[in-house]
Amino acid sequence: MSAVQQPHDLMDATLRTRAVAAARGDEPFEVLIRGGTLVDVVTGELRPADIGIVGALIASVHEPAARSDAATLIDASGALVSPGLIDTHMHVESSMVTPANYANAVLPRGVTTVVWDPHEFGNVNGVAGVRWAADAIAGLPLRTVLLAPSSVPSAPGLERAGADFDAGVVADILSWPEIGGIAEMMNMRGVIDSEARIGAIVQAGLAAGKPVNGHARGLEGADLQAFVTAGVSSDHELVSGDDLMEKLRAGLSIELRGSHDHLLPEFVKTLNGLGHLPQTVTLCTDDVFPDDLAQAGGLDDVVRRLVRYGLPAEWALRAATLNGAVRLGRHDLGVIAPGRRGDIVLFDDLVEFRARTVVASGKTIASAGRMIEPLTGLAADRLHGTMKIAPLSENDFRIGADGVKVRVATIDRPRFTQWAEAIAEVEDGFVVPPEGTTMIAVAHRHGRADSLPRVGLLSGWGHWRGAFATTVSHDSHNLTVFGGNAADMAVAANAVIAAGGGMAAASGGKVDALLPLPLAGLVSEEPLEEVAASFAELREAVGRIVDWQPPYLVFKACFGATLACNAGPHQTDRGIADVVTGKLMESPVLEVLEA
Amino acid sequence: MSAVQQPHDLMDATLRTRAVAAARGDEPFEVLIRGGTLVDVVTGELRPADIGIVGALIASVHEPAARSDAATLIDASGALVSPGLIDTHMHVESSMVTPANYANAVLPRGVTTVVWDPHEFGNVNGVAGVRWAADAIAGLPLRTVLLAPSSVPSAPGLERAGADFDAGVVADILSWPEIGGIAEMMNMRGVIDSEARIGAIVQAGLAAGKPVNGHARGLEGADLQAFVTAGVSSDHELVSGDDLMEKLRAGLSIELRGSHDHLLPEFVKTLNGLGHLPQTVTLCTDDVFPDDLAQAGGLDDVVRRLVRYGLPAEWALRAATLNGAVRLGRHDLGVIAPGRRGDIVLFDDLVEFRARTVVASGKTIASAGRMIEPLTGLAADRLHGTMKIAPLSENDFRIGADGVKVRVATIDRPRFTQWAEAIAEVEDGFVVPPEGTTMIAVAHRHGRADSLPRVGLLSGWGHWRGAFATTVSHDSHNLTVFGGNAADMAVAANAVIAAGGGMAAASGGKVDALLPLPLAGLVSEEPLEEVAASFAELREAVGRIVDWQPPYLVFKACFGATLACNAGPHQTDRGIADVVTGKLMESPVLEVLEA
Repeated sequence: MSAVQQPHDLMDATLRTRAVAAARGDEPFEVLIRGGTLVDVVTGELRPADIGIVGALIASVHEPAARSDAATLIDASGALVSPGLIDTHMHVESSMVTPANYANAVLPRGVTTVVWDPHEFGNVNGVAGVRWAADAIAGLPLRTVLLAPSSVPSAPGLERAGADFDAGVVADILSWPEIGGIAEMMNMRGVIDSEARIGAIVQAGLAAGKPVNGHARGLEGADLQAFVTAGVSSDHELVSGDDLMEKLRAGLSIELRGSHDHLLPEFVKTLNGLGHLPQTVTLCTDDVFPDDLAQAGGLDDVVRRLVRYGLPAEWALRAATLNGAVRLGRHDLGVIAPGRRGDIVLFDDLVEFRARTVVASGKTIASAGRMIEPLTGLAADRLHGTMKIAPLSENDFRIGADGVKVRVATIDRPRFTQWAEAIAEVEDGFVVPPEGTTMIAVAHRHGRADSLPRVGLLSGWGHWRGAFATTVSHDSHNLTVFGGNAADMAVAANAVIAAGGGMAAASGGKVDALLPLPLAGLVSEEPLEEVAASFAELREAVGRIVDWQPPYLVFKACFGATLACNAGPHQTDRGIADVVTGKLMESPVLEVLEA
Repeated sequence: MSAVQQPHDLMDATLRTRAVAAARGDEPFEVLIRGGTLVDVVTGELRPADIGIVGALIASVHEPAARSDAATLIDASGALVSPGLIDTHMHVESSMVTPANYANAVLPRGVTTVVWDPHEFGNVNGVAGVRWAADAIAGLPLRTVLLAPSSVPSAPGLERAGADFDAGVVADILSWPEIGGIAEMMNMRGVIDSEARIGAIVQAGLAAGKPVNGHARGLEGADLQAFVTAGVSSDHELVSGDDLMEKLRAGLSIELRGSHDHLLPEFVKTLNGLGHLPQTVTLCTDDVFPDDLAQAGGLDDVVRRLVRYGLPAEWALRAATLNGAVRLGRHDLGVIAPGRRGDIVLFDDLVEFRARTVVASGKTIASAGRMIEPLTGLAADRLHGTMKIAPLSENDFRIGADGVKVRVATIDRPRFTQWAEAIAEVEDGFVVPPEGTTMIAVAHRHGRADSLPRVGLLSGWGHWRGAFATTVSHDSHNLTVFGGNAADMAVAANAVIAAGGGMAAASGGKVDALLPLPLAGLVSEEPLEEVAASFAELREAVGRIVDWQPPYLVFKACFGATLACNAGPHQTDRGIADVVTGKLMESPVLEVLEA
């Protein structure tokens, strides 16, 4: 309803009364942060101020040294004191760790709120996966706003995920108090064309009075206007400064995304050119790989890079705090002011943004980059057992064909795929992948259909000297295997199956590297450092199997190769799918040329 | 809950689908505003753009002349096209006309949303008065967010209004869907000191998830911090540029008020000095007398004056549109963008802000300063019959006393009152008002106590050559009479009683001017022009009875003379009350000096 609703814990009358008494000076503060320079995201000032806290509430922001009565004193001398950072769009699963371990990683960096689309758990575990996410965030000092996944599966009819969320399912999830809105609407055409299934999902969000978030990649002109008019109110899929401007003008809440670093300098130039920071600009990470999270950080790294590229530091922090809070309708967040939540970061400076101390809901939870008491997560039994697939044989990764020569369809180019064709020899009833092609196999692993791999051919993916298997494969997360030969593909696939999900690289008939991800085949319960190390090792092993050619042919492209909601052909567990034409081919064989 | 909840009428799936089809270009628009320059309150640009509308929804904002298919075309050539203006704090009753006639006055000026504290109706008619307000706004094209009055009466125990709203009553009103929050918390000390009655009212607002609005006059330092920490989130009682800065820093939503014009240049200087417009700055009118409303306008006049004093026009409009909408949590308002409500004003320029055409919820409702179809209001029978008081006699306006000489207390100075004393003769059992004093009589008129006038003495109010009686008398709105002699006071009072409430000036034993206000003794059902003319006439008549000495001794001061929640002595229906000490004297006679 309103922009100033108070979360339950801050409604407590006794807490308010205690905080008011401390503000008046009739009682001491519980915590007093003294001697720092406050980043005032309302006025834009950097000004000396002390902050008195009672319970989770900021009780007073006052002149330096005006008060010294407090149970705990925090010396903020030399520090820049900022509201905790708010990441307005992200997927915990992308970092391959549990929510607790994600929190352990970002809280010490000053990120105190995230908006999580548990879209990947939804695709694998269905409503139970989203429910687990809701339970897992319940006790975390990282404030986590959960969203209801909108696109499970991303391309209905063309792929089979572990679940299928129609408007009824989405409406049910939306009714949970933990849920802050509908997650990115990825089926853009469905929204623009008012398709029944998608239209009903958008409508469920409007009816629930919760925001419908967007994924407006490449939309412009009439398509963009239609997408927004339907009720979508945000976007993070910006591709240029002009795109940013058009989306600001369309009134969208902007989730400026750190995951596409090469675009950030252009965004900075565009915003600086406006001469002011629109209040609709917020910041997000979207997807961060575990090694990147461990080394560079989460939203703090987005702030750091934006400032490095020339955005005024106060603007970057305002986008990451006040603007995010307003978007979320969370009056308790985003500002250091009386009556707000005590989510506060002490940065050493506004260049490196190294967090000296982090206070969440009034408690000091991290110091010098480390959690004071690392969080232990909720048991994840519910997410295990998602590899509903038996071991596979070498021949399962071959494309059957009649005759001796055939014409085959290929999926050409990583990222922005298109249809192509090739001529192939047939030996012993199987297609011999022609020169310049790579095999991609997708096997259904959710127990909702047969688990026989559908095998296709990629072109423009380089020469593969082994195979890579992964159950992280957007968005249905079926077992996906890339390879130059069927033998290594089977080895990699079986290693992943045996691990209960995850990733494996294989060459010469043996496994080179393995990252088990037993939670939904997406996430590990191990600490971030271990997951990051294993992931880095695996990334290197795959790099020895194929020669990457940036910017399109990169490791990251493997995880989006099956994203069937995107334009162009994509391999899924049902064959080669084309969302634009609705075409679905179980086999890439188009024609027998020589019988 | 969230910042983007959609009001009920915009949730309609059929409407959305039609608007999306028009945005795509598959259907024509219903209305197309062409050729204007759009005031983009997000980016700060003035840019050419056309606007397509379907039903109440903006369906598309696109390149000029890109589309021409629409049932109705509006030529915006040469016009600046702005979102409709939002007045974030006002009292309809102050303009002494019905909500429908208020709407008739401000809609043609471009004000499309107001936040109404129906505090005066609450004090006179109780919950029934607030309910009438809720019913009266239901069909209006002026979007009206109603607030639950927080301070009925303003000074419990020291005055008797027509009702008494404790936290239970306020909570009940808050549960109505029309209610957007708690209106200005006037009992500042009660909030700061966590008094039980007031604390429970604030708590009711927090529990309802609706904003608690403030009245933080003169608060600074620890008092301000305590007031805000209690849960209050706005203020309109700014007294200086420094005060504005301190309240911005305290995270308050600012309702920059037009009713104190002399302060506006200082506010402009302060904001310009910041170099950007904080997103927490909104604009309001608070109180506008009927003649001022008719001549100068409502929130449009606040915008006009701010720009005249040097605020960038785009900032003034952003404060009056986007910032107001965000404060209200109304995603549908404040921006001209797809999917938002079609509340749009075509201004001739950004200097005079003359509204050429006004569109509300997609319909053209005003043109060239006039309503196309003037609104007729809801029947107001429920608000009649509030003069529960019999005609009064001359002696009712005299102060009884024993002896021949007495010491009396006086209420010294208009506006910022203080206690003073005087020596008075007694003749025939009544005090003879000493030289330099004026009588003030307050008679309870709500039928909840006896209606015998309590008569006191004012000093520093000039020499009165007649009397002025009014039932508009903040905040209990008892019958209040000022005068130099009891005979004229009785004449004026009885004229007001006979009129069913209102105002009268009398001199030489006859009525000089009368403004009947039969709705709650506060408001007339006559058109604004007539009320404004009568009010102006009355204002002149009172000006012939007393010589005003601005800035404190002015006509307006009469209406606040009984505002017992303010510091210092004030006459009420119970006597002379002092909220700071809790003192209450039924008679001003302190001591008989000569028996």
